Amino acid sequence: MMKYGIAIFPSKPIQDEANAYRKRYDPKYELVPPHITLKDGFLANQETIEELIIELKKIANEVDPFSIQITKVSSFAPVTNTLYFKVEPNDQLTYLVDKMHEGKFSKEMEHAFVPHITIAQDLSDGEYSDVRGTLEMMKVEFEDVIDRFQLLYQLENGSWTVYETFVFGKERL
Amino acid sequence: MMKYGIAIFPSKPIQDEANAYRKRYDPKYELVPPHITLKDGFLANQETIEELIIELKKIANEVDPFSIQITKVSSFAPVTNTLYFKVEPNDQLTYLVDKMHEGKFSKEMEHAFVPHITIAQDLSDGEYSDVRGTLEMMKVEFEDVIDRFQLLYQLENGSWTVYETFVFGKERL
Repeated sequence: MMKYGIAIFPSKPIQDEANAYRKRYDPKYELVPPHITLKDGFLANQETIEELIIELKKIANEVDPFSIQITKVSSFAPVTNTLYFKVEPNDQLTYLVDKMHEGKFSKEMEHAFVPHITIAQDLSDGEYSDVRGTLEMMKVEFEDVIDRFQLLYQLENGSWTVYETFVFGKERL
Repeated sequence: MMKYGIAIFPSKPIQDEANAYRKRYDPKYELVPPHITLKDGFLANQETIEELIIELKKIANEVDPFSIQITKVSSFAPVTNTLYFKVEPNDQLTYLVDKMHEGKFSKEMEHAFVPHITIAQDLSDGEYSDVRGTLEMMKVEFEDVIDRFQLLYQLENGSWTVYETFVFGKERL
């Protein structure tokens, strides 16, 4: 059994901008590049993951490349002291997430899907109140074209390695 | 222009074992998972990388999954104070590397291809002489099946993000 997750990596300028904050404010900075989580970590054995990969190829082939808009910094407080680049919800993101939580996939979602790129997390209440105002006042505006998502697995040190990339409309079944 | 590289990630047990050493002895531990480099960093614009991706799909389709053997820890000293899991050379690795340095690809290779997974680098001479004996005496034996390689690009902080995965015999042209 290994722990897998599914995510979108935004393009390099957005990753670089997110990392500028993550380096200071995100203890998970070194474990994975900046990303939009589509499906949280789930356990699967080799046989199951091979079945799910076929499903992921089908899903990828059903979606055309689409734009996302990043409009501001938002927060999950008071639930968690997390700050993130808010990604405006759109039909394609919702479709992808829905498809990855039905059929052969594990169905539990820990919380409603709020598309985001984390830039600060696990802050103490003091740190959080120090940085929240500054980060939420920043003008953050990005547009990006999304044409793929990635299946990753977690190593023992907590970091994530990409196992496979799924490019919209290009997967061979 | 972005900087790209091509690498194989070995399976999780090998990555975990390599990371146990990298954490202490490799300052690049946080920048990329343990890997076998097939092609060193090269610059490409969007148009070029799209052409090269087509070539990489063709190359991936020409290769069947193959075994690699990791047999011991070796060193690149005195050229550099680098220690690595030695991967026994084989025809498929050589084929992949050759194909990625001809035709539309940049042809320069900085050095002859020695397949390896780095576990320690950029050590001072003192550190190096401290750890070399210990690491080279370790019994390291792994076999792994390789069925894919990855195209990565480098972010401003030096870390690498996977752009695309190429699975042997499975790519759609």
